[in-house]
Amino acid sequence: MKKLMSCKVVHLLNHDNVRQLIFQYYYKFSVQLSMHTIEIIIFKYFIWLINLLAQLEEFGRMRPVIVVHGGAGRIFKEREEGCRTGVVRAALRGYGVLKPGGSALDAVEEAVRSMEDDPHFNAGCGSVLNEKGEVEMDAIIMDGKNLASGAVSAVKCIANPIKLARLVMEKTKHMLLTDHGAQLFAQAMGVPEIPGEKLVTERSRERWKKNLEPDSNPVEFQNKSFVTDGWVGSPSALAYQFEIRDLGTVGAVAIDSEGNVACATSTGGLSNKLVGRVGDTACIGSGGYADNCSGATSTTGHGESIMKVVLARLILYHMEQGMSPEMAADTALEYMKTRVGGLGGVIVVSSSGEWAARFSTKQMSWATVKDDELHYGIYAGERHTKSVAEALASESEGL
Amino acid sequence: MKKLMSCKVVHLLNHDNVRQLIFQYYYKFSVQLSMHTIEIIIFKYFIWLINLLAQLEEFGRMRPVIVVHGGAGRIFKEREEGCRTGVVRAALRGYGVLKPGGSALDAVEEAVRSMEDDPHFNAGCGSVLNEKGEVEMDAIIMDGKNLASGAVSAVKCIANPIKLARLVMEKTKHMLLTDHGAQLFAQAMGVPEIPGEKLVTERSRERWKKNLEPDSNPVEFQNKSFVTDGWVGSPSALAYQFEIRDLGTVGAVAIDSEGNVACATSTGGLSNKLVGRVGDTACIGSGGYADNCSGATSTTGHGESIMKVVLARLILYHMEQGMSPEMAADTALEYMKTRVGGLGGVIVVSSSGEWAARFSTKQMSWATVKDDELHYGIYAGERHTKSVAEALASESEGL
Repeated sequence: MKKLMSCKVVHLLNHDNVRQLIFQYYYKFSVQLSMHTIEIIIFKYFIWLINLLAQLEEFGRMRPVIVVHGGAGRIFKEREEGCRTGVVRAALRGYGVLKPGGSALDAVEEAVRSMEDDPHFNAGCGSVLNEKGEVEMDAIIMDGKNLASGAVSAVKCIANPIKLARLVMEKTKHMLLTDHGAQLFAQAMGVPEIPGEKLVTERSRERWKKNLEPDSNPVEFQNKSFVTDGWVGSPSALAYQFEIRDLGTVGAVAIDSEGNVACATSTGGLSNKLVGRVGDTACIGSGGYADNCSGATSTTGHGESIMKVVLARLILYHMEQGMSPEMAADTALEYMKTRVGGLGGVIVVSSSGEWAARFSTKQMSWATVKDDELHYGIYAGERHTKSVAEALASESEGL
Repeated sequence: MKKLMSCKVVHLLNHDNVRQLIFQYYYKFSVQLSMHTIEIIIFKYFIWLINLLAQLEEFGRMRPVIVVHGGAGRIFKEREEGCRTGVVRAALRGYGVLKPGGSALDAVEEAVRSMEDDPHFNAGCGSVLNEKGEVEMDAIIMDGKNLASGAVSAVKCIANPIKLARLVMEKTKHMLLTDHGAQLFAQAMGVPEIPGEKLVTERSRERWKKNLEPDSNPVEFQNKSFVTDGWVGSPSALAYQFEIRDLGTVGAVAIDSEGNVACATSTGGLSNKLVGRVGDTACIGSGGYADNCSGATSTTGHGESIMKVVLARLILYHMEQGMSPEMAADTALEYMKTRVGGLGGVIVVSSSGEWAARFSTKQMSWATVKDDELHYGIYAGERHTKSVAEALASESEGL
């Protein structure tokens, strides 16, 4: 039966019509095969395209960067380690917000809040005292996307002025609330009031007392509140007066994966300052500035000198003219030194993710995280590097 | 005897020695004559030189200029004449200081003080009221010679905040005192405290009450102090909100015969603002800036927008890049409008004595005096001109 069938097939194959049929079938099959191949190619190309787009999207996303400072000036030896630990912790906290896609605004707030809670710094708990022995604090936060900003000045009895500054930005139509009005606003926002004493450390109390002594160091200018000939000393004299002080204003700048920049600064100001003295921190353009078109910066140092040259905005002007963050920072700090005799420090991040931490004082505690790598230091030229994983492990072990 | 003498003289004249003697005498006399002539020439040249030097000195001395503003925004018809009179008076007062060689600093203080005392303006007496119905004022003054500055924010119960700002500059080592601290400082300086009611006009009280009504104009943004979605409206919406308001911040800029520039600004801020709200006026670089290297500027308008772009410093930055005061003012105002939707006005004087009064609002009252000629106006394109003598005569007759 099988043999018969085979003979029949051979017979059929020898038939012209059948051969033609087979040819047609083969042709159709070939075309189908070709179509199938094309489909496979298209599909493969589609997959490749999706991967490419994903890669391009990843490439287009900014690699987030955070830079923090814990104040410029002279940092006494016994405080060095605490400051290093504090800025590293703040930078890691800020990067912890940025890494999973958090905003620059949230990151700088988180970093500054971390340093406000740290008694090693002159902000929040650890703030220096005014002439009456009270803590009065200033803080500012700014969003580079729309130039929105919030600030508070001369605020008392709250743990985190930077949080209140953010509330001013987000919940009012104003940008700066001061003193009694800021306190009323804090109450309206449900920000808990804490006893002023909770913000005072033994160190700040001792320093305040020392400054009140009749034989206190005369070059530490904030001892005497009123002068007879104005605040116009020779640059070198001012620089010297500033150099000996032990400040600790805190600040942070960041760029997130969306390319938005932000800055935040918080301070207790000058030790033994007049009641109601507001420094550079609360003044937009002086204590900080953020603009997605150029970058963000936070300043620290002699507040009145910083205000005279509107330092933060000046740095970004230089960057708008094509300078790198480092060159812009150095140029502006040099100008402040030569024009008004003031010393200070700045942290900067550009809209392309370049960063700088520069200072004309002897020291400035700073830390930055970019590409999962942490850098930090205090003295000029000092730069330690660790991976974020290593730094987090060290931190959890108490660094 | 006489004849004998004559003969002897003739004889003597015929004698060679005598002739030589006469020649020598004549020669000596001629030389003496020449010397005398040279002396006269030298003396004349000396006198001419002194005159020339005096002329050169006169030429080298800057011709003083003062420019004042009485606020940008919408000026209601019934207030127009009062505003014109007020800015003209202020400009004449300031020029009265400059003309006999007074300083730019004294001139701007005098001009602003004049407008603080004038109830037509939102500064000093005539200030608008905050949400609680109180007057809280901000003021700044700045010296372009050394970038020294003094400011006060949220001050109450004093007639002239600009005077207190100058005291902050000259009698403290700080640059900005706020609220309660500023009040303590005023007491220490012997600045008289006045009842807050003395600063309140019928107009400001009525406006405050109207803003408190539940059906008050919703586009007048300061009616509602807290918002839920932040202070980020669309530019056109913001511009419209601002346009309808009737502000009256005052300011002055000047250059004196020594070539020093200065600026001063004073304001009651926004009507029905939150207690403790500080606007651009008290913030250096926003409400004003003065630098002998470029010029001086005072700003007015929507305070929060001015702060976002740090307007005063921005204008001088443009001038440092080579722009004229007018172009710098227009460029900065246009930027403020497009970037953050804010309207305002500015007055500018350059270090070479060029001046500008520009605004993006419907109106701004302004006046200037240069070369003994007064110019003033309110609407765009409006410019009246008078000689100072004529203006002073009109003023003494009640204008």
